[in-house]
Amino acid sequence: MSDIKTLYFKDWTLYLLDQRNLPLKIDYVKCDTVEMVAEAIKNMVVRGAPAIGVTAAYGLVIAAKTFMKNDYKQFIEKMNYAKELLSNTRPTAINLFWALNQMEKLYINDNSFDNIADILLKEAQAIEREDIELNKKIGEFGASLIKDGDGILTHCNAGALATSGWGTALGVIRSAYYGGKRIHVYIDETRPYLQGARITSVEMLDLGVDCTLICDNMAGFLMRQGKINAVIVGADRIAANGDTANKIGTYSLAVLANYHNIPFYVVAPYSTLDMDIKSGKDIPIEMRNKNEVLYCGKHQIAPKNINVYNPAFDITPSELISAIITERGVFKQPYSETLSIYD
Amino acid sequence: MSDIKTLYFKDWTLYLLDQRNLPLKIDYVKCDTVEMVAEAIKNMVVRGAPAIGVTAAYGLVIAAKTFMKNDYKQFIEKMNYAKELLSNTRPTAINLFWALNQMEKLYINDNSFDNIADILLKEAQAIEREDIELNKKIGEFGASLIKDGDGILTHCNAGALATSGWGTALGVIRSAYYGGKRIHVYIDETRPYLQGARITSVEMLDLGVDCTLICDNMAGFLMRQGKINAVIVGADRIAANGDTANKIGTYSLAVLANYHNIPFYVVAPYSTLDMDIKSGKDIPIEMRNKNEVLYCGKHQIAPKNINVYNPAFDITPSELISAIITERGVFKQPYSETLSIYD
Repeated sequence: MSDIKTLYFKDWTLYLLDQRNLPLKIDYVKCDTVEMVAEAIKNMVVRGAPAIGVTAAYGLVIAAKTFMKNDYKQFIEKMNYAKELLSNTRPTAINLFWALNQMEKLYINDNSFDNIADILLKEAQAIEREDIELNKKIGEFGASLIKDGDGILTHCNAGALATSGWGTALGVIRSAYYGGKRIHVYIDETRPYLQGARITSVEMLDLGVDCTLICDNMAGFLMRQGKINAVIVGADRIAANGDTANKIGTYSLAVLANYHNIPFYVVAPYSTLDMDIKSGKDIPIEMRNKNEVLYCGKHQIAPKNINVYNPAFDITPSELISAIITERGVFKQPYSETLSIYD
Repeated sequence: MSDIKTLYFKDWTLYLLDQRNLPLKIDYVKCDTVEMVAEAIKNMVVRGAPAIGVTAAYGLVIAAKTFMKNDYKQFIEKMNYAKELLSNTRPTAINLFWALNQMEKLYINDNSFDNIADILLKEAQAIEREDIELNKKIGEFGASLIKDGDGILTHCNAGALATSGWGTALGVIRSAYYGGKRIHVYIDETRPYLQGARITSVEMLDLGVDCTLICDNMAGFLMRQGKINAVIVGADRIAANGDTANKIGTYSLAVLANYHNIPFYVVAPYSTLDMDIKSGKDIPIEMRNKNEVLYCGKHQIAPKNINVYNPAFDITPSELISAIITERGVFKQPYSETLSIYD
């Protein structure tokens, strides 16, 4: 596991760890067209807001390499198509759009058309490298909020495999653990896609920290028993007022934490902030296929003709969030004032 | 489905619908020894507090038929063994102990030793029949609390297949629906054992009511959107102060309902009340095998060496319960006063 990477890029080809097969198989999906990259994001070969951003950046590198043989006008048309294709994969995570815009700035002028693929490759590599560095800074800030002996509940996977490495929510846990704090991590399995059971479990066993897997509906009962001292989750998009979109189930945890007076922390790179969006009600929520709920692997768990509600994310209102931890520091309420200081 | 029965008894043999295979297969487990009945309860061939009670009663009928060939002293020893065996299957549901005690009253004196198996059979059949009648009464009381147009969330399966028929929580839904109320039922899939996805889905599709399956962690987000007007659940044991043991996940729903000002109803036969237990903290909570969480059918969802927390039930404190609906009427707070009026 320590050696498993979320992705790597070699000979103009992107290799994505197929996270759908974890923990049972470790294999990589090879993408050498932008269409393959877009499909891989959509089908959740790769997931996690920061990792999706980096993947999309490499998608544009591959697109540039492919479309460079055209003249500049055609190249830009093709790149617009590629950007559009990647944009339409998953609507909620802001990092995807942020990374695509970073890349677009470099190819939108024709100054350096001759070696544009190399230029874009360097930028994608920089985004990837910075992601890891940011996560380590976030980890340091977050670890200061964790006390020795804490029981920490986390949801979904905001770990090394949701990013280029280290992780956001799990990066905080990683930093606290390496800092010598004895903690116990409770892992929400995170239905329907089971990122907690399948991915966070693997990361936490690998880290060597004490950990316990639970079903999502057990969190409240653990809180009632005083076993949880903090809830730590990632974010896919944060509105200007602090409202946060994250994996479905996050909102329920925030309400439960509030009821039990347990701090509820959101952990994400500052680029997860979308200052153009005033509050959570304007964040688009992706609805996914009913089969993700009806099947567990190939095992069918309910009648095929039942209606299913399957939002990928929910919105946690800022009043339920004790702090938002970024590489720029720990932000507290009122978020509409504190978050905008860098604007 | 309408024709599927939780259980039937024929030629001194109990046939239990194997609910582990729902909704994919409909088959019956044949039990002609008390040991087989105990195993079937333990392994959740049959589940649901009232259904477990009826099953245990038939278990003693089979025991009596088997052990009648002994002299009376040996018979009583064997019956004590049988009762003990059945008692040790699942510790939380009170109905199991209630049914066993009802039966014991009939064989503990030697007055009618000659035809004791017939006497016990009649009693078990009466318990089974009464269970259905009670459920229909409960349904009437409960339906009065449901409004036309309500969205109703239910957890686990407190339906026809958790009882001898009709159901408790789902009995209320059934009565409201037959009474002409247009309702929409949201079904918590209910990890890890998926009674909601596997069993309640089938019952609700069969009833013909509008319904939608969700993962347990989606309930809060639905409440936030105003889609849920009432939460209705069953109960495995209710303490004298109204604290209620029910399927794991119930407590989280009660907290979420409280936060969103949504009424939270517990529905159960009055025999679910355990007046000997003052509060929820004295109700024993069954811990189950980790493999129930690690596997979905034969599909493994997490590393085998991860710790797992798997309580079958949790306790909802009475202050979060808006009403307890029984065949004797609708009880409201303060439960320590209202519930004891029949004592």
